Amino acid sequence: MRAAIIGATGYTGLELIRILSRHPEVEITALTSERYVGQRYDQVYPAVGAIASRVLEPLNADAIAPRADVIFTAVPHKEAMQVVPSFIKKKKKVIDLSADFRLTDKATYETWYDAHTAPELLAKAVYGLPEINRKKIKKAQLVANPGCYPTSIILPLTPLLKDDLIDTSAIIADSKSGVSGAGRSLKTGSLFCEASESFKAYSILKHRHQPEIDEQLSGICGKPVSITFSPHLLPMNRGMLSTIYVTLKRPMSSSSVQNLLTSQYKNEPFVRILPEGTLPQTGWVRGSNYCDIGFALSGRRLVLVSVIDNLVKGASGQAVQNMNIMMGIRETMAVDHVPMYP
Amino acid sequence: MRAAIIGATGYTGLELIRILSRHPEVEITALTSERYVGQRYDQVYPAVGAIASRVLEPLNADAIAPRADVIFTAVPHKEAMQVVPSFIKKKKKVIDLSADFRLTDKATYETWYDAHTAPELLAKAVYGLPEINRKKIKKAQLVANPGCYPTSIILPLTPLLKDDLIDTSAIIADSKSGVSGAGRSLKTGSLFCEASESFKAYSILKHRHQPEIDEQLSGICGKPVSITFSPHLLPMNRGMLSTIYVTLKRPMSSSSVQNLLTSQYKNEPFVRILPEGTLPQTGWVRGSNYCDIGFALSGRRLVLVSVIDNLVKGASGQAVQNMNIMMGIRETMAVDHVPMYP
Amino acid sequence: MRAAIIGATGYTGLELIRILSRHPEVEITALTSERYVGQRYDQVYPAVGAIASRVLEPLNADAIAPRADVIFTAVPHKEAMQVVPSFIKKKKKVIDLSADFRLTDKATYETWYDAHTAPELLAKAVYGLPEINRKKIKKAQLVANPGCYPTSIILPLTPLLKDDLIDTSAIIADSKSGVSGAGRSLKTGSLFCEASESFKAYSILKHRHQPEIDEQLSGICGKPVSITFSPHLLPMNRGMLSTIYVTLKRPMSSSSVQNLLTSQYKNEPFVRILPEGTLPQTGWVRGSNYCDIGFALSGRRLVLVSVIDNLVKGASGQAVQNMNIMMGIRETMAVDHVPMYP
Amino acid sequence: MRAAIIGATGYTGLELIRILSRHPEVEITALTSERYVGQRYDQVYPAVGAIASRVLEPLNADAIAPRADVIFTAVPHKEAMQVVPSFIKKKKKVIDLSADFRLTDKATYETWYDAHTAPELLAKAVYGLPEINRKKIKKAQLVANPGCYPTSIILPLTPLLKDDLIDTSAIIADSKSGVSGAGRSLKTGSLFCEASESFKAYSILKHRHQPEIDEQLSGICGKPVSITFSPHLLPMNRGMLSTIYVTLKRPMSSSSVQNLLTSQYKNEPFVRILPEGTLPQTGWVRGSNYCDIGFALSGRRLVLVSVIDNLVKGASGQAVQNMNIMMGIRETMAVDHVPMYP
Repeated sequence: MRAAIIGATGYTGLELIRILSRHPEVEITALTSERYVGQRYDQVYPAVGAIASRVLEPLNADAIAPRADVIFTAVPHKEAMQVVPSFIKKKKKVIDLSADFRLTDKATYETWYDAHTAPELLAKAVYGLPEINRKKIKKAQLVANPGCYPTSIILPLTPLLKDDLIDTSAIIADSKSGVSGAGRSLKTGSLFCEASESFKAYSILKHRHQPEIDEQLSGICGKPVSITFSPHLLPMNRGMLSTIYVTLKRPMSSSSVQNLLTSQYKNEPFVRILPEGTLPQTGWVRGSNYCDIGFALSGRRLVLVSVIDNLVKGASGQAVQNMNIMMGIRETMAVDHVPMYP
Repeated sequence: MRAAIIGATGYTGLELIRILSRHPEVEITALTSERYVGQRYDQVYPAVGAIASRVLEPLNADAIAPRADVIFTAVPHKEAMQVVPSFIKKKKKVIDLSADFRLTDKATYETWYDAHTAPELLAKAVYGLPEINRKKIKKAQLVANPGCYPTSIILPLTPLLKDDLIDTSAIIADSKSGVSGAGRSLKTGSLFCEASESFKAYSILKHRHQPEIDEQLSGICGKPVSITFSPHLLPMNRGMLSTIYVTLKRPMSSSSVQNLLTSQYKNEPFVRILPEGTLPQTGWVRGSNYCDIGFALSGRRLVLVSVIDNLVKGASGQAVQNMNIMMGIRETMAVDHVPMYP
Repeated sequence: MRAAIIGATGYTGLELIRILSRHPEVEITALTSERYVGQRYDQVYPAVGAIASRVLEPLNADAIAPRADVIFTAVPHKEAMQVVPSFIKKKKKVIDLSADFRLTDKATYETWYDAHTAPELLAKAVYGLPEINRKKIKKAQLVANPGCYPTSIILPLTPLLKDDLIDTSAIIADSKSGVSGAGRSLKTGSLFCEASESFKAYSILKHRHQPEIDEQLSGICGKPVSITFSPHLLPMNRGMLSTIYVTLKRPMSSSSVQNLLTSQYKNEPFVRILPEGTLPQTGWVRGSNYCDIGFALSGRRLVLVSVIDNLVKGASGQAVQNMNIMMGIRETMAVDHVPMYP
Repeated sequence: MRAAIIGATGYTGLELIRILSRHPEVEITALTSERYVGQRYDQVYPAVGAIASRVLEPLNADAIAPRADVIFTAVPHKEAMQVVPSFIKKKKKVIDLSADFRLTDKATYETWYDAHTAPELLAKAVYGLPEINRKKIKKAQLVANPGCYPTSIILPLTPLLKDDLIDTSAIIADSKSGVSGAGRSLKTGSLFCEASESFKAYSILKHRHQPEIDEQLSGICGKPVSITFSPHLLPMNRGMLSTIYVTLKRPMSSSSVQNLLTSQYKNEPFVRILPEGTLPQTGWVRGSNYCDIGFALSGRRLVLVSVIDNLVKGASGQAVQNMNIMMGIRETMAVDHVPMYP
C-alpha cells in the first residue's frame, strides 16, 4: 500500500511517519510541504535520520495521486478543504486530520470556522472514531479524523449516552492538553518560557472542538446535546486528560458503572477501562494509541476521567487505525505501541 | 518581632524563611526539625546559604516560647494538634499551616482525618483567609491557615455566594496543583519520572480539602453547601489553578459578573480581577501572594478560573499576611513579591 | 525464545518489557520483584495494562531457569552478582544490566563498589557494546550490559582512539543525564521539586562509571587511559548527552573527522553520524536505540557530542540488541523504534 | 531616581521591572517598545498587573531623557549602538544589556557581530562585572552589562588567573543555559515542544560570548587567553551552570583551592563559595542575584562549577547592581532576593 502525506512537516505529519515507517503493509511514496520543499525530510527532523530521507515536494495532486493508494492530509483546516476534493475525484482514499470534514452541517462549520469550499463532501465524510463508526469507516472513501479533545470526551461518554443514563443538559468536560496540540507554528504562547512551569485555561466555552463534540454526542443519544467545554494547556509535550462531570438520571452502584464501561469496550483493542478506583494519568498512554478511562462516583454525581496521547489516539495513531480499517487489514497493525513510561 | 518556625525543613517552612528573612519587622529566632536537628539550615537547603544559617533544634516548647512572639507551625496534620496547645497556653500567637484547626466541627475532622487531641481549640481558631475574615484574624490568638485548594476556590466563589446568585447544589471545582503541594516527603508519585511529562487526576470526590471548602462556603452563604471537588497533579513545581463551574440563578451579563468580582475585591491587595475575556495562568502569580481571577460566561453557565502560587497565597505567603494582620502591621509587608515570569 | 526478567519493576525492567513484549521471537515467561511479589505487573505499572499482566514472583533460580532461555538481570549492583552465578551454572544465557560484571579487574571493582562475590565470572563476562565487541557477544554466555554514560562516551571516541589520533592524557567527558538514570528508588534528589527547573553537577571525578569508561578506552587504544568525567543531572525523564573534549595529535580537517566517524559506523544500524556542522539533541533519539554523534573542530581542539536515550541504548535497548546477537537473530529486531519527537 | 527602560517587553526588560518596581530609590518613568506601543505594560504581561501599568511609548530620546536619570537599554545588539549615543550625549547614565559595548576592540566586535556605528563609545564603556570592576563602574557613565555565559565563567576563574595558578592555554567551559536566555522572539528552537524533555549543544566554538570571555580573562591575567567554550540548552526557564576544566600549574590541596576562592569573594554580597565537596545546582540561585561556586579536584585537574540565574546575575539583577554602584547607593538594594526553591 502506498501512502502520501500532505503537510508532512507538522507534528502530526511527523507522527504519521513515526508510525507508517514501521507499518509492514505501507510504503510512504510522497511527502509534501510548503515551507521545506526540496529538503530531505530528515533535514527538517534529524530525529528520523536513516528512517525518512525522502525529499519534500510541493503539493501537486496530479503528480502525487498516481503514486498513492491512500492520502493523509495533515494540513490546517481551510487548506484541507482545498486539497481533499482533488484526491477524492481521483478515487483515492483520504484520511483528513483537519477539522474541515468533521461537521456534517455546513452552517455550523461556517459559524465556527470559515466559508466551506467543498460542502458537497460533508455528507460523504465519515467521522473516524472507530469505536463508534467502524462499519462506516470500512466503506468510507473520506474519513474525517476526530479532534483530540473530542476523542477523549466522546469515548467515555458513549456508554452512558447509549443507555440514556445521564442528564444530557448538564455535561461538563474540563480538558487539559499538552503543548504539541498547538502544532509547530510560531506563536508566543507556544514558546517554552511561556508554557513551562505554568498552566492556563483558554477558549472556555468558545473552543472550535465544541460543535464537533456536541454533534457526535447528539448523534449517539439521538437528541441535541450541548456540553460545557473548557480546554487548558499543560506544561508538557504530549498527553491529554479530560475530566467529565455528569449527573446520573438514577443512582448506580460503582460496580454497575464499571461493568457498563467494561462491557461497552471489552472488544476494543485501544480502550482500556481501568480497575475500579483507579484514575488514569497521561503518562500511561504516552506514545501509544490507547485511551484509558477511570471514574469516581458519589450518589448521582459521576466523574469520568480519560487520557490519550493527543498525537496518537488524538491524531495520527487514530488516522492509521482508520487506514487499517479502510484497507481491510488488521486494525492494530503498526499502532500497537507499548506506552513509553517514564 | 521574633518568629519561630516549627517544622522548618518542609517546603512551606522554607517558603516562610524566604519571606520572613526579608521582613523588616521580623527576626527568626528558632527553627525546628525532627530529621535534621543539629544541622545548619543552609546545609539542608544550600539555596539559602548566607541567609538562613541558624542551627535546627528539636521541638521544645518550653525552650522556644520565651524566644518568640509568633509561632508558625508547619508540621503535618496530627502533629500540629500536639504542638499547638503548648504554645497557646504560653500566650503565644500561633499560625498553624496544617489542617488541624481548619474545621470547626470535631466530628467532621475525625471523619476525614484522625481523632482530634485538641478539640477545645477548634472554636478558638480563626480560619485565616484575610479577604473573608480579616477582622477576626486581627484579634485571633490561633489562626488556621487555609489549604491551597480551598483558597483558590473560596475567593472566586465568595462574591457570588454572598449575593445568592448561584445554585449552591451544583458547584464543581476542577483544581490542578503543582507537585510542591505534596511536600518533600518521599513518595513514588512525587518522583520526577512519575510526575514529569504526565498529568493525573487523584482523590476525586475524596480529597481532605473537600470538607474545609464545604464548611467555608456554607458559612458564606448561610446554608449547607457540598461541592464536587476534583484535584489533579500538574508537572510543575508551583502553581494552582481552579476551574469552577456554577449555574446562575438568573442570567447576568458578562459586565455584571465583572463588576461584581471587581467591586468585591477592589480594596484587596492580593486579589486581581483580570480584564473581561482574560483567563489566568499560574505563571502570572509565580512566587507572589496574588490570586488572579477570570471567568467565561454563556447563558446561565458561568465558569470561574482562579490561580495562586500554592506555596505563597496557598500557604506561607498567606501565613505571613495573617501574621501582619495579627500584629497590626502593614498587611502586605514582605509579601509584596512581584511575580517571577518566566 | 523464553525470557525472564529478574528485577522487573525498576525503570530498566519496565523498558525491557516495553521492548520484549513486541519482540516477535520472544515470550516473557517470568518477572521477579522483591517488593511487589504476588501483584500483577500492570498493577505496578498501569501503563502496560493489557500488555503485561503476568504476576510478579520471587526470585528463585530453580523455579525460573527451566522456563527461560535467556535471563535479564535488572537488579542493582551487588544483588546481581548474587543472582547471576546460579543462572550461569544452569547454562542459561545471561544479560546483566548492573555494573557487577563490567570490570574485568576484581580489585578495581572492589575499589569503586564492594567486595565481589563472583569474581570467577569476571573473565567470562563480555562487555556488551555491540559496535566494539559484536563477535565476542555472539559467543558469550554472560554479557555485561554497558552503563549509559560509558556507552555515550566510548562510541564517539572509538574511531579516534583506534587510529591513535588524540592525546589520551587529556580526554574530558562532560555528560548530562535525564533523571530516569537514577532509577525508581526513593531519594530526595529524585523528587520532582528537587530536579525540575534545576540542573546540577554531581560526583565529578568520583562517579562509578569512570573506571568502566577508562577500562574500555584503554582496551581500545592499547594503553592506560584515565579521563576526566563529570556527570550532571538534567530536568527531564530520558536522554543523555556527552560533550567530549579531545586534542588531536596533529591537525585534521573537518571533513576528515567526518569521514573517520562515518566510515567507522557506516554499517552500524544504531549509530548515526550527523551531517557536518550539526550537533545532536537528546530529543532526536528519544525512545530509540540510536546513538547520534556530531562534532565541532577548531585547530587541534575537537569537541565530540553524542546523545542516547539512557533507558534504551543506555540500558534495555542495548540489552535486547545483545540478546539478538547472542541468539543469532536479526540484531535490530524489536529495537528498531523510530524516535518519538516531540 | 528616575529610570527608563528601552526595550521593556523582552524577558530582561520584564526582569528589570520585577526588580526596579520594588526598589525604594527608583521610580520607573518610561518604558519603550516597538511592537506594543500604546498598550499598557500589564496588557503585555498580566503577571505584573497592579504593578506596572505604564503605557508603552516609542523610543524617542528627546522625549525620554528629561524624565530619566538612568537609562537601561534592553534591546538586541545592533539596536543598542544606535540608541545609546543619544542618551550619552544628553549626559545620562546608561546601562546597556546588549553586547554592543562589551568588547573594547572594534575589529573583534565586527568579526563576531556587525559593523559598529558608535565605536567612539567603546573606550568609554566599563565592563559591568562589579566583582572585578567595581571602582570603574562607580565612575562610569556607560556600563556594558556582561553576558550571562561570561559572568558564570569569569567569576570562578578570576581567583585562579589572578594568582597565575593555571595553564591558560587549556581552559574549557562547558556551559548550560535555560531557554529564557534565548529571549522572547519567535524561533522554532524556542518552542516548548522543541526544547522540553530534550537537551542540546549548539554553537560550540562559535558562540558570540566567546570573544567577550576571552577579552575579560586576558585582562585579568595579563596575557592573551582563548578558551574552549561550549554552550548547551537546558529544558527549563531560568538558570545557567558552567563546568570549567583547568589544569593547575602545580598541585594544590583541596583546602587551598577552597581558601583561595573564599578569600577572593569573602566580601562579595553575591558570590557564595560552597562548602568543600558541595557542587551547586541552578535551583539554589533561582530568582536571585547570587553566583554559587563549587569545585572538584584530582591531582592537577581542577573542575570548577558555577551557577547563576541567567536573567538576574546574568542580566537584569547585575544591571541593577551596577546602577546601585553608579548611583552611590547600597549595592544590594532591591537585588537581595532570596532564591526561590523549589
